[in-house]
Amino acid sequence: MRIQTLLVVGVGLIGGSIARAARQRGLADRILGVSHRPSTRQFTLESGLVDEAFATPAEGIARADFAVFCTPVEQLITDLLTAGPLARPGTVLTDAGSTKASVVEALAGKLPSQVEFVGSHPLAGSEKQGPTHADADLFVNRLVIVTPDGGTTERALNRTTKFWESLGARVRRMPPAEHDRALALTSHLPHLAASALAGILPPELVDLTATGFRDTTRIAAGSPSVWTSIFQTNRAAVLAALDLLEARLRDFRSALTDDDRQRLERLLAEGKERRDQLTP
Amino acid sequence: MRIQTLLVVGVGLIGGSIARAARQRGLADRILGVSHRPSTRQFTLESGLVDEAFATPAEGIARADFAVFCTPVEQLITDLLTAGPLARPGTVLTDAGSTKASVVEALAGKLPSQVEFVGSHPLAGSEKQGPTHADADLFVNRLVIVTPDGGTTERALNRTTKFWESLGARVRRMPPAEHDRALALTSHLPHLAASALAGILPPELVDLTATGFRDTTRIAAGSPSVWTSIFQTNRAAVLAALDLLEARLRDFRSALTDDDRQRLERLLAEGKERRDQLTP
Repeated sequence: MRIQTLLVVGVGLIGGSIARAARQRGLADRILGVSHRPSTRQFTLESGLVDEAFATPAEGIARADFAVFCTPVEQLITDLLTAGPLARPGTVLTDAGSTKASVVEALAGKLPSQVEFVGSHPLAGSEKQGPTHADADLFVNRLVIVTPDGGTTERALNRTTKFWESLGARVRRMPPAEHDRALALTSHLPHLAASALAGILPPELVDLTATGFRDTTRIAAGSPSVWTSIFQTNRAAVLAALDLLEARLRDFRSALTDDDRQRLERLLAEGKERRDQLTP
Repeated sequence: MRIQTLLVVGVGLIGGSIARAARQRGLADRILGVSHRPSTRQFTLESGLVDEAFATPAEGIARADFAVFCTPVEQLITDLLTAGPLARPGTVLTDAGSTKASVVEALAGKLPSQVEFVGSHPLAGSEKQGPTHADADLFVNRLVIVTPDGGTTERALNRTTKFWESLGARVRRMPPAEHDRALALTSHLPHLAASALAGILPPELVDLTATGFRDTTRIAAGSPSVWTSIFQTNRAAVLAALDLLEARLRDFRSALTDDDRQRLERLLAEGKERRDQLTP
């Protein structure tokens, strides 16, 4: 894999880490960055994350042969629709958004022939934000889900796959809707639950929290606007996941109400069994 | 604070850490340990955590001037009722259980005069179990809630307070029922929610989890029998906390169903605001 000019749209934690990793691994000859904030453009230029910095994706897209869009999911649809038609033939566009079907649908039929979009979702991140936390190893051994649809060519799929593998990631391919249903359970619902647990804590009890509460609610510190976009672009799957959680909570409620030791312990044992299958 | 003979009943992670911390800080002349498992008695003796090891608390209690009961909450009520009446005048008994009102109530009127029980709950721990993980610094700068009731003397309350402070902890005093209501929200409900999130994850999605899921469900790896005891001895408060969580989830559901960006973002912002008040 060799990119002449890589365009990174949205140079925050993810975009900044892509730029730094691409630089360190010699993946691209030239890296262009897009940030709407002047302070971010200045930082990414001065720190050497990017070679040139622009305020809008339309400014750099015509020079790129590979572009990755890392803005929040609703913004990246807008950015792709604005900049995509300006790309030159052969350019592959991908993204790093947390939901996929809405992006793929929004772009259907909107790109010039010989310009292709293939969705990606790196399962990497942090509650930290911004390019000052950019980490060249953020993707090493992490999973990136790449979501081809019916119209995706082998060439575009292979370039997207090799792009992430060149940054150290493992790649798994999955249809966009299947990705969205899976991530509703593995990512979006946990965020919703963590936020709910934090949101109902009375302020006077903050001092009585210990590591359990802190771990369980850590992701609730994530950006409300980013997560609102994620929830809104995956509503049906998040609601279906919420159905499952609410049903499970009703099981706990009824075992508690009945003071049923066996059922309580079985519910907890099932949760422990699944959790123990994960690495710490 | 100076203890001649300290009895630690239940030498697991918490009891083992108490023994190790008491030893390192020269808090007690002699440490007696109680473990029902022969292998634990052997380990705690050979590793020097305790000077003598017994199978039941009744065997060591008459020689102790301070005793701390660290078995799971239902077991420790049994242990306190069995061993407490054998303690000599002046002995102070405390515990490390996660719920307090049920323990205080179970002991009311059951102890000899001049033997006193004062409830304690160290907000320290880990999903790790057993004395092999004993850590002399487990309580350093951690909060221990001490729960006097109407009958508690100043002497017993002071000895209990100084005991934990000698291990490096900060102590806060609170009535037992108030403790239980607070911990239902800061500890028991997060455990229940983490277990529910882990329990509903289909096995084929385990590979699609990232750090967010792992953090949020980490405590679900805790012992099902220990947590069943905690839930059962704090049923009313856990059910009240569950009411609050379910109401919050209904707020999320309705904002999602209505595709109401403003309400979703406000709910998430409230969760973030509270979470940001905690240290990472």
